[in-house]
Amino acid sequence: MKRVCVGLVGCGTVGTGVARILLENASLLKARVGTEIHLKRVADIDFNRDRGIRFKKGVFVEDAFEVVDDPEIAIVIEMIGGQGVAKDLILRAIRNGKHVVTANKALLAAQGNALFAAAFKNGVDLAFEASVGGCMPVIKTLRESLVANRIQSMIGILNGTCNYILTRITREGIPFPEALAQAQAQGYAEADPTLDVEGHDTAHKLAILSALAYGMKINLKDIYVEGISGITPLDIAFARQFGYTVKLLAIGKNLGDRVEARIHPTMIPETNLLSSVSGAVNALMLTGDRVGDLMLYGYGAGMMPTASAVVADVVDLARNLLSGSRPLRVPGLSYQKNRIKALPVVPIGDIHTYYYFRFSALDQPGVLSKIAGVLGKHGISIQSVHQKGRKTNGSVPVVMLTHLAREKDVAAALSEIGAMEVVDAAPVLIRIEEEVPQS
Amino acid sequence: MKRVCVGLVGCGTVGTGVARILLENASLLKARVGTEIHLKRVADIDFNRDRGIRFKKGVFVEDAFEVVDDPEIAIVIEMIGGQGVAKDLILRAIRNGKHVVTANKALLAAQGNALFAAAFKNGVDLAFEASVGGCMPVIKTLRESLVANRIQSMIGILNGTCNYILTRITREGIPFPEALAQAQAQGYAEADPTLDVEGHDTAHKLAILSALAYGMKINLKDIYVEGISGITPLDIAFARQFGYTVKLLAIGKNLGDRVEARIHPTMIPETNLLSSVSGAVNALMLTGDRVGDLMLYGYGAGMMPTASAVVADVVDLARNLLSGSRPLRVPGLSYQKNRIKALPVVPIGDIHTYYYFRFSALDQPGVLSKIAGVLGKHGISIQSVHQKGRKTNGSVPVVMLTHLAREKDVAAALSEIGAMEVVDAAPVLIRIEEEVPQS
Repeated sequence: MKRVCVGLVGCGTVGTGVARILLENASLLKARVGTEIHLKRVADIDFNRDRGIRFKKGVFVEDAFEVVDDPEIAIVIEMIGGQGVAKDLILRAIRNGKHVVTANKALLAAQGNALFAAAFKNGVDLAFEASVGGCMPVIKTLRESLVANRIQSMIGILNGTCNYILTRITREGIPFPEALAQAQAQGYAEADPTLDVEGHDTAHKLAILSALAYGMKINLKDIYVEGISGITPLDIAFARQFGYTVKLLAIGKNLGDRVEARIHPTMIPETNLLSSVSGAVNALMLTGDRVGDLMLYGYGAGMMPTASAVVADVVDLARNLLSGSRPLRVPGLSYQKNRIKALPVVPIGDIHTYYYFRFSALDQPGVLSKIAGVLGKHGISIQSVHQKGRKTNGSVPVVMLTHLAREKDVAAALSEIGAMEVVDAAPVLIRIEEEVPQS
Repeated sequence: MKRVCVGLVGCGTVGTGVARILLENASLLKARVGTEIHLKRVADIDFNRDRGIRFKKGVFVEDAFEVVDDPEIAIVIEMIGGQGVAKDLILRAIRNGKHVVTANKALLAAQGNALFAAAFKNGVDLAFEASVGGCMPVIKTLRESLVANRIQSMIGILNGTCNYILTRITREGIPFPEALAQAQAQGYAEADPTLDVEGHDTAHKLAILSALAYGMKINLKDIYVEGISGITPLDIAFARQFGYTVKLLAIGKNLGDRVEARIHPTMIPETNLLSSVSGAVNALMLTGDRVGDLMLYGYGAGMMPTASAVVADVVDLARNLLSGSRPLRVPGLSYQKNRIKALPVVPIGDIHTYYYFRFSALDQPGVLSKIAGVLGKHGISIQSVHQKGRKTNGSVPVVMLTHLAREKDVAAALSEIGAMEVVDAAPVLIRIEEEVPQS
């Protein structure tokens, strides 16, 4: 084969990065692949944007269908994003017998099962390394490097925006809105940051990873999601006093016939390596029955780190074509199609974990005993109680750390405590993950 | 294809782990690969060792050639180690048209160029993920995930034994021999620990990684190697005062037409993620022109983590066979054969880095000025001087941190200073790596 022709639909930030790598690092790619990866067509509705690239005449087109319908193009790179035209283009490319590379986590999390079924039916590959963790080779590690392992758990920082914000709050003691504004000023957060800071982007990623790790269908809707907008410098300061760092974690656990899949701010021991992961980066700790703990760390977003992962997928597919490999050399969702189960996700009320509570209580005798009484009634065992800090409007913060407790008991107790007259604000709850590996 | 037949030569610790994974996780592997990976023959001269495995009759044989000559066996796993019979068996398997999986870093570092040439000539794959970093997918990451990147540098902790020992010295302030004894008691160090503690094992790994990262021939002999047996609790304590952690690092840098490749104890800022990597584990920080910094972390040794990587290679090769891929889908040394250069390694005397010196000097006026004078004469600029700690036999430790300096100037200056009458012990030198990414 003289060269492998690829087409790109969507030339925004990451798409531009992909085009630049394919053009600028062309000789490096050829030295490794042995054959030219030829970017034949690039489609974007925005003709005028300066991308710092000089495309040859005829390469840049307005109509994405010119790309997905081009018979010479073997691999289509979808960089449009969203669940509308991106999905239509992917399906059209698949039906045209083309392999597809995408970074579209929202689409895969919501409609991945149908897309992978279509790819399987049409005998093409749908590659998606860049959809989770940017340049971290998460997908390849799960599908290939850990193939001999039952994955027992995955605990990760999968949103750089949230990690940047939490790092700022931790280091500077500033409130969430100020840290968010810093993230926006630095280009780490969008003008509308909801998808990131409320945890939905992280949930998209965990939905994809859980399918690969546990051999289950992609199931976004059952993932519990809680973001970081309620995190205060006060709670982070308390966490540090107890030797914890607060991170927005994606937590996925394999319970055999069920899985846990949840996104929420979490206290983890500062001796854990994930605690040392600061700023706008990602990290994922995987635990397998054979490897023990394995961690990946890197830039989870940004033009070039994401584009690097996209090009790695393109090369993987090109190598299949060049070596005469049939498609689906590695199954899309890591398991053979007939071995994928519909494993249920444990409802958040049924999980058992450790908790940090902060109550804003009137500074009166007997208050602690009343709070403790409610917790005891609901079967929640207290590990330690801390009454610290100065009085604010007659209230003092009462902080408690629990032993292992069930979430629905905790919710019932906190609802009862929140309604008490001696408690003058909604109780704060942050889950603690003690089962992370220690360094 | 009904099943893929594999044969194992060498059933020691890791070999036993490989056999156990192939047998115990057989149904998991089948769910992912779609076909049985059949362990047809296992050869070891030690018949009587209890491996906790019940092999079917006829599987276990004494003669390794029964494995490499078996026409039904498509993939041979070499787990003998060493450079004698292991090499003969690998070459025989290659000539028999079989793909080979090995973890034999010493053999690859010393004779890999010839082995990869033989594999290329015979049109078979030689896979070696387990040779570097145990379960960390280092080889796959360099050959596949970072294919779009010029690798600029690699800085890694690649020997768990050394990292365990340095962690013990750092945390407990005990001398090297005591920390080594602890490592031996814990099973982290061999009875003869030379290969590990003197840095040679780390050098084997860097020789392999440098070839993959920079497109050069494997070149072990030009790597500078210095181990950790001379590291004292006193120097580690000083390092901590300056905000540094001491690690045995493999440092590989791409200078374009030359590379740096060196193994030595190194001070790195404690804000770097590698500083937080404690105990008998490995970690590698890779820097690419597109991804920026990417880190892998995991168990670099041990029966199961290493066996997991071996089985991942077996599955990779089995997937080639099952999908009809021609061999050498990914080039063995990451670059196409005709694109591999003989890049020279910079001699240690020519490197420029930062230094920590400790002199044991008589407590007399004018000593500091004499030492500083010699350094100045050799063009070494001092960043800070610290005269701390109590007098021992009339001497005091004088510690200096330098600006960027050239190693051969440092060596000349230290030799001159060591010969001074006011200095009563050989000067201590530890290199400082400031260019590691900060978290």
